Amino acid sequence: MKIITISREFGSGGRELGRRLADILDYDYYDGEIITAVAKKIGMNEAYLEKMLENHGWQSFSISYHSTFHSTQYFPNDMVSLLLAQKRVIEGIAALGKNFVIVGRNADLILKAYYPLNLFVCAEMDARIRRCMERAKPEEQLTEKECLRKIKQIDKARAQTRAIYSEWEWGRRDAYHLTVNTTGWNLKELAPPVAEFAECYFARRL
Amino acid sequence: MKIITISREFGSGGRELGRRLADILDYDYYDGEIITAVAKKIGMNEAYLEKMLENHGWQSFSISYHSTFHSTQYFPNDMVSLLLAQKRVIEGIAALGKNFVIVGRNADLILKAYYPLNLFVCAEMDARIRRCMERAKPEEQLTEKECLRKIKQIDKARAQTRAIYSEWEWGRRDAYHLTVNTTGWNLKELAPPVAEFAECYFARRL
Repeated sequence: MKIITISREFGSGGRELGRRLADILDYDYYDGEIITAVAKKIGMNEAYLEKMLENHGWQSFSISYHSTFHSTQYFPNDMVSLLLAQKRVIEGIAALGKNFVIVGRNADLILKAYYPLNLFVCAEMDARIRRCMERAKPEEQLTEKECLRKIKQIDKARAQTRAIYSEWEWGRRDAYHLTVNTTGWNLKELAPPVAEFAECYFARRL
Repeated sequence: MKIITISREFGSGGRELGRRLADILDYDYYDGEIITAVAKKIGMNEAYLEKMLENHGWQSFSISYHSTFHSTQYFPNDMVSLLLAQKRVIEGIAALGKNFVIVGRNADLILKAYYPLNLFVCAEMDARIRRCMERAKPEEQLTEKECLRKIKQIDKARAQTRAIYSEWEWGRRDAYHLTVNTTGWNLKELAPPVAEFAECYFARRL
């Protein structure tokens, strides 16, 4: 089984790169937002989680997750429960035995035993701010300054969550196989050589 | 003209990777040690430097540099003169107009105007210590602890020199196009996908 995990700075385009890699390589694709939404939904009910994992029920979940994404109804009452539920979902995905790309949620650490290819995606701050402003919902109307604040906040939260799993800090270069800077790239042009790198990694590993 | 610059942690195999890239892509190859040796030799004599640059005299220099490498005879009396001489040599190489790989000496900053592909090569500390012990000269007989100390010393010196050129610290991920972790790789297998990445970078840039 071939797994590519993607960790990324907010606004670097890591998610889009992940989706493009999955397309090129014909792997399944999961992102952190879907996994979190599933984990939140099932976080309060262990028996329900088991059933979901057994029946791969979360695979059809992404279709409807938007409607429940903002619901806090099932939100675990503490961070540890949420992380545990996320971990279970990620382990369940791996148990399917299919190749996949997964973005976020410290999947590189959770899936260590599968020897995934671990990518970190970054970009220069100016490029991240531009991307953040372009991608913001029209009703958000974020200024440059607000985007910068948001980027710093989210990066900080990611670094803090990572510290729960590992003493190696978030983004530390020797914790990933490859750190890709998307600044100045069209992601459509960047994805093929990164996919080629992945193929070489898996060819060597097997 | 296509230029690949390689910055690297000591013991990461960055120099070997650079040489292999030059081989695969059929580029010229220069490393920091040769450049420094040339720069030291000519550092005291501006007229001599001009003549070397004009006639590309340093190209034949690498053949004999080993004998003068440890000579301090021509060593500039301060760091700034040495850095200036290195810079002149690197600019002279670029003036030749041929594709090349260059390892070290902050060439990514010096050659910025040529839009080089800038790589940073790193590895986990254990792998770097192993490499350092394997590569040490028999008479050196470095212990693990001595290698670790040497690695930290050299990394620190590189970071300090970089600080002269740039406020962006050494190894900062968004200052390079790609950060490659060599841990666990046979460099012969790692070089081709990195060369492929370089081809894509230059194809897009042109």
